[in-house]
Amino acid sequence: MRKIAIIGVGQTKFGEEWTKSLRDLAIEAGIKAIEDAKIEGKEIEALYIGNMSGIFTSQEHLAALAADMAGLNPIPSIRCEAACASGSVAFRNAYLSILSGQHDIVMAAGAEKMTDIVDAGALNALMSAGDQEWEGFVGLTFAGLYALIARRHMHEFGTTQEQLALVSVNNHKNALKNEYAQFRQEITVEDVLSSPIISDPLHLLDCSPITDGAAAIILASEEAIKRLKIENPIWVLGVGQASAPLALHDRKSLTRFDSTIIAARKAYSQAKISAKDIEYAEVHDCFSINEILAIEDLGFCEKGEGGKFVEKNGINEVVKVNSTGGLKAIGHPVGATGIRQLCDLTRILREKGKYGLAQNVGGSGSTCVVTILGSKDSIKG
Amino acid sequence: MRKIAIIGVGQTKFGEEWTKSLRDLAIEAGIKAIEDAKIEGKEIEALYIGNMSGIFTSQEHLAALAADMAGLNPIPSIRCEAACASGSVAFRNAYLSILSGQHDIVMAAGAEKMTDIVDAGALNALMSAGDQEWEGFVGLTFAGLYALIARRHMHEFGTTQEQLALVSVNNHKNALKNEYAQFRQEITVEDVLSSPIISDPLHLLDCSPITDGAAAIILASEEAIKRLKIENPIWVLGVGQASAPLALHDRKSLTRFDSTIIAARKAYSQAKISAKDIEYAEVHDCFSINEILAIEDLGFCEKGEGGKFVEKNGINEVVKVNSTGGLKAIGHPVGATGIRQLCDLTRILREKGKYGLAQNVGGSGSTCVVTILGSKDSIKG
Repeated sequence: MRKIAIIGVGQTKFGEEWTKSLRDLAIEAGIKAIEDAKIEGKEIEALYIGNMSGIFTSQEHLAALAADMAGLNPIPSIRCEAACASGSVAFRNAYLSILSGQHDIVMAAGAEKMTDIVDAGALNALMSAGDQEWEGFVGLTFAGLYALIARRHMHEFGTTQEQLALVSVNNHKNALKNEYAQFRQEITVEDVLSSPIISDPLHLLDCSPITDGAAAIILASEEAIKRLKIENPIWVLGVGQASAPLALHDRKSLTRFDSTIIAARKAYSQAKISAKDIEYAEVHDCFSINEILAIEDLGFCEKGEGGKFVEKNGINEVVKVNSTGGLKAIGHPVGATGIRQLCDLTRILREKGKYGLAQNVGGSGSTCVVTILGSKDSIKG
Repeated sequence: MRKIAIIGVGQTKFGEEWTKSLRDLAIEAGIKAIEDAKIEGKEIEALYIGNMSGIFTSQEHLAALAADMAGLNPIPSIRCEAACASGSVAFRNAYLSILSGQHDIVMAAGAEKMTDIVDAGALNALMSAGDQEWEGFVGLTFAGLYALIARRHMHEFGTTQEQLALVSVNNHKNALKNEYAQFRQEITVEDVLSSPIISDPLHLLDCSPITDGAAAIILASEEAIKRLKIENPIWVLGVGQASAPLALHDRKSLTRFDSTIIAARKAYSQAKISAKDIEYAEVHDCFSINEILAIEDLGFCEKGEGGKFVEKNGINEVVKVNSTGGLKAIGHPVGATGIRQLCDLTRILREKGKYGLAQNVGGSGSTCVVTILGSKDSIKG
């Protein structure tokens, strides 16, 4: 099996970027990734881009558009979509395209422009990631779906609203030093609990925001890395993806995501490591309850103990969870998030540590991708 | 490089399928493909699905939905989008995923439900495949874009409206025996020329219709084919994909699609054959002019001679173009078309001939995928 690594990362500021269009965001991230890799655009052999919904901007066919605007034509350009896991699904397919031997250097990007749609438009667009016939058309929103999950977790395991609130408190604190983050101010548990209820038990500050942003990564084969004399590549050690029912009523349990469990098992197995080896984890806290589920399903603690884990600021003996701010504070431009997580892990692993993990969820757990990256120390032995 | 073949195909009837939802269509096609391959669903290791736009149905995340509804969980499920080339982009990535060694048996499907949207909704959804900022928002439609191309082709090469009309006449005739086709009645050149002008010089009957439909293919590695004792696999001999500017004003020429030329070169090179070896070609006649461009850009005749080629009923010494009816008569459920073309070629090559080619275009030529299939005779020598 070919060895493949991340050799460049780039992203835009995340936030309400009124002066930038979807294509502006995508191109800015892509060019930054190319500059970071210190290669020329003509080295790139294919472009994969994660983007969740044309409903936000009325622009589909984004991969060809971005390839054109970034001067990458005539390379193959592919948009991948799996709701909020679109970015990491694009990453996985970029990775597979190199593994196939057809390409050596490939860009995997993600972009979403969510603030160009008015009124309830963004909520409706997001609900297209759920089961519209069974959930959306009868009035459920994603806050509603995750509220059902949160309530059940509280019932089964005694998880508290304060623990949920702490997810957001921790992530806001972690984002203070993140120059790309949408929110860089501390909040308190009291702030979260006194913010408006969106869907009981979830308050406004339990919810990740509507965000514009893009992120991009350059992936390369070991042969290309040697040829280009790339320094400090961050290796892709494992990638797992799994699917689960879209509709919540079809799940065996509301308090675990089988897609996360199966994707993680695949990724750990491929990387030949286990949960206890992971030092940095970027997990999908679209709503606070989802960080708790992720911590449990990824094996960082026992099922039901996620709330207590969060009380330790998302840090156990080894792993630091969402140390750059998570979706809550960095923002969640849905198609870009999976790539942003991997950009963050790459920046961390270039400086310190051996193993990082990203968990990116689509819908209410219907898609999950788990990716494990390793620094140069990870392959020394 | 692993050898990979198509071992099963399935599709729905194409048309205005009022009683079937997007998921109904996708599942029907998928189950037919599994039955055709004579395998069990549990053998399938990943699902790729081409689907152009959530604007049509408000349902994104279709791959996970289809995996769930078809009982394929928890396999990785990926939606690919490249406008009307979404189906063949899904196919190419399914193919790459097997080539990567990560999977052995993968389903590539395509589905679109276009008639659930009212008024100009379908036109607006389709225009999301073009450059919205430069083309869509100022009023251009795809009929308008292809009309500009047609007018320029007439100007440069003397192509006539009668030749354009003959594309539709031929394809309607070819669809008479196609049980899946939306339109199974003969039309005349006079019918085309007396139908309403949509965008001069294109008449209503120069345009492919709005269609509901789905198609699915099972791909397998040579090892899996031997293990499962599959009879008469149809081999994937070459797949090329290329991108070009979305906006027409950025092209060097209006009368050729560089994406087709580059994708075809890659596919011919990989298959180690040339245009003169192709016996059956399914090309992308979304508008009549596009069949003429395809015939030229794929090398079946010289540039500018496509109109004369069509006068011979789309048949030269060797190749039969759109012998099952083309997009015009079969219908064009945009995300499904690329897969439908490959289903048709597979059915043909199981019976007769050595080499078939499919050309699937996204937008006004911004994406093109060219796939070459070969029958058992193609590998005998």
